[in-house]
Amino acid sequence: MSELRRDPLSKRWVIIAPKRGERPNDFHSDFTIEAGRQRDAECPFCEGHEAETLPEVYAHRPHGSQANQPGWQVRVAPNKFPALRSAEEFEIQAEGMHQRLNGIGAHEVVIETPQHGLSMADLDAAHLAHVLTAYRQRLQALMQDARVRYVQLFKNHGAGAGASLAHSHAQILTLPVMPGALSTELRSTHEHYRRTGACLFCDIIRQEIASDERIITANESFVAFAPFAGRMPFEMFVAPWFHQHDFTMIGDEQIERLAYIIRDSLRRLRAAASDPPYNLVLRTAPNTRSLADPAVSISTVAPAYHWRFEILPRLTPLAGFEFGADCYINPTAPEAAATLLRQSNPG
Amino acid sequence: MSELRRDPLSKRWVIIAPKRGERPNDFHSDFTIEAGRQRDAECPFCEGHEAETLPEVYAHRPHGSQANQPGWQVRVAPNKFPALRSAEEFEIQAEGMHQRLNGIGAHEVVIETPQHGLSMADLDAAHLAHVLTAYRQRLQALMQDARVRYVQLFKNHGAGAGASLAHSHAQILTLPVMPGALSTELRSTHEHYRRTGACLFCDIIRQEIASDERIITANESFVAFAPFAGRMPFEMFVAPWFHQHDFTMIGDEQIERLAYIIRDSLRRLRAAASDPPYNLVLRTAPNTRSLADPAVSISTVAPAYHWRFEILPRLTPLAGFEFGADCYINPTAPEAAATLLRQSNPG
Repeated sequence: MSELRRDPLSKRWVIIAPKRGERPNDFHSDFTIEAGRQRDAECPFCEGHEAETLPEVYAHRPHGSQANQPGWQVRVAPNKFPALRSAEEFEIQAEGMHQRLNGIGAHEVVIETPQHGLSMADLDAAHLAHVLTAYRQRLQALMQDARVRYVQLFKNHGAGAGASLAHSHAQILTLPVMPGALSTELRSTHEHYRRTGACLFCDIIRQEIASDERIITANESFVAFAPFAGRMPFEMFVAPWFHQHDFTMIGDEQIERLAYIIRDSLRRLRAAASDPPYNLVLRTAPNTRSLADPAVSISTVAPAYHWRFEILPRLTPLAGFEFGADCYINPTAPEAAATLLRQSNPG
Repeated sequence: MSELRRDPLSKRWVIIAPKRGERPNDFHSDFTIEAGRQRDAECPFCEGHEAETLPEVYAHRPHGSQANQPGWQVRVAPNKFPALRSAEEFEIQAEGMHQRLNGIGAHEVVIETPQHGLSMADLDAAHLAHVLTAYRQRLQALMQDARVRYVQLFKNHGAGAGASLAHSHAQILTLPVMPGALSTELRSTHEHYRRTGACLFCDIIRQEIASDERIITANESFVAFAPFAGRMPFEMFVAPWFHQHDFTMIGDEQIERLAYIIRDSLRRLRAAASDPPYNLVLRTAPNTRSLADPAVSISTVAPAYHWRFEILPRLTPLAGFEFGADCYINPTAPEAAATLLRQSNPG
C-alpha cells in the first residue's frame, strides 16, 4: 500500500509506492504509467484497445460514440498502476519525528489522441483545445474532493523525460498535501501582493514584455517566454497575460488561444532543439475547497497566485550538484534560447 | 561569463554558465566535468597525464614526489571548464523583480585514485581516508574566503548519474549564496533546537536506532541508514552519531571510521542493486566566516545543523511529477531497502 511521508529536515513529501520495486531489475516506472508495451499493436492507449485501460472517466466523442468504445478524440481513465489509491478516510500517523499519511489520491491518464505516432506538437490547435478542455474538466471534478489539496498535471515526452509509453498522454495526480515548491511560490506571491497590491507574476510578465529579451511568442491572451532564471536550456513558461490564479477558471475562448500558443511553443522547441525529450507541467493554485491546512490559509493566498504551464526540455543530466545544492546549472542563457526559439519555424 | 540568477517565485538560484551550450548538440555537460574523452590512454585524470589538468591545489603524495608529476594517490585541481569563475568583487544587480550576481566561485575536481578502472567502492579504507582528508582540506581552504557562503561537494558515479568521465572523481563548487534546500533544513534544525534544546538530526538518529527498521550498518562513530522519507530506492544517509555541524571539523581518527562505513555502504549498494549509478553529496553547515546574509544569521543557526553524506542511487527516472510537485515517487519502501542492504555482502 502506498503512503506519503514527510522528511523532518527538508519538509519534503515523498510518495512511497511499493509494488514490485523491491528488486532493482524491476524499476521501470510502471507504477506511474502503463507498463512498457511499446509496439503499436499492443499499445493500451490506441483506439480499439479501450478494454485495456480501466473504464473511462471522461472522453471527447464528437460523434456521440459509446463510452469505452472507439470514436473518441481524447479519453481519460484511471491509471492501472496508480502511485496513490483512493481510500475512505485520511489516516495521519506520527512516529516521533516522522509523519506519514495513507496514500489517498486519484491518478489518471489523459490519452491525448487515438493515433499512436502523434505527439502533442503534431495535434492541430482544435484538437489540442479538446485536450486542454479534458485537463480542465478533470481538475474541476477532482477538486470537488475536500481531501485534495493540490492537483498535479504533468506530461513526459520521450524516454529521456521519464516516459515509458510512447503514445501521447498526460497524467493527473491528486495530493492531500501541499507540495513544498508550491508553498514557497504562494509565500512569494502573497508577500508581493501585500507589499504592492499587485500579482507578482503579472509584474514579471510586464517586465518581460518591456525588456523583450526573453519573449518567444504571444497572442491576445497568452505569452510564452524563457524565464530569467530558467533551470534548463530552452525552458519556457506559457501563461495568461490577464490575472487568473486557478487554471480551471479558464473559459472556452481562452482555451482555444492557449492551444494555439502551446502548439506553437512545442513546435518551435522541436525545430530549435531536434525534438528533445521534455516535461510539461501545470502550476496552478491549490484547491480552496480543501480541508484546512495548518501551515497556510489557502483561501487567503490562492488568489494572488497566477497559473502557468512550464515546458522543461531534458537536454542536460541532473547530477550530484543539483541534488546537493538544489541549484541548477544551465549552459544556455535564457536570452540566447529565446532568440533561437523566436527565430525557429513553428511550421 | 557565468552568473547566478534568482527566480522571484521559487527563490531558487540558478547558475547560468553559457559556454558552447547555445546549440542543443553541444550539451554534454563538459561545463561540469572535463570533456568526454573516455579511453584510458586519453583520460586527463590518469597518472602520467598531470599536465592535462590545471596545476594541482592539493595532493596526497606518500613518497614526497613533485607537484604535477606522478606519484600521487589523491589529487585536486581546478576544473578546466568551471561552472563559476573566481573574480575580484561581488557585483549584485537588480533588474526590477530579477536579481543577478556575477558568477564568483571555485570549481575543483578531486581525482580519487591514479588508476582509471577503480570506483570509490574499490578503494581500500586507508586510501578512502586520504580521499576524505582531501575533501576536508579543500573545504577548509575554500571556507577561508568570506565570499563563500556554502561549499557543495558531490560525486557522480556512472553515466546515469550525470558522470561524463569514468575516472573516479568528486567535484567541489563554492557558492556565494545559500542554497534553498539548505535554508529550509537550517530552519528545521534551528526550530527544533529552540523548542527542545536538542539537535534534530541527533534525535532522528536516536529514533532510527531505537526502531532498528532502517539501519544498514554502523560503527563506533557513524551510522548508515535508509531515511524514513527517502526519495529514491536504496537511498542512504551516512552521518556521525556524535553531534558535529561542520564536516571540516572531523578529526583524523573519525575520518578513518568514516572511510570504513562509506566503503561498506557503497559495497552493499553495489551488491544489492548491481552497481547502479549514484550521486554522493555532502550536506554540511554553511560557512560561518561568510559575509552577512540578509535572510539568516549563519553563526546562530549553523551549530544546530548536523552534517551527513547522502548516497542517491539513480534507478528511477525523474519526470514531470517530480519537477511539477517537487515531490518524489519512491517504489521501494526504505525498510525493504534497508533489509536488502543489511543482508547484502559488502565483500
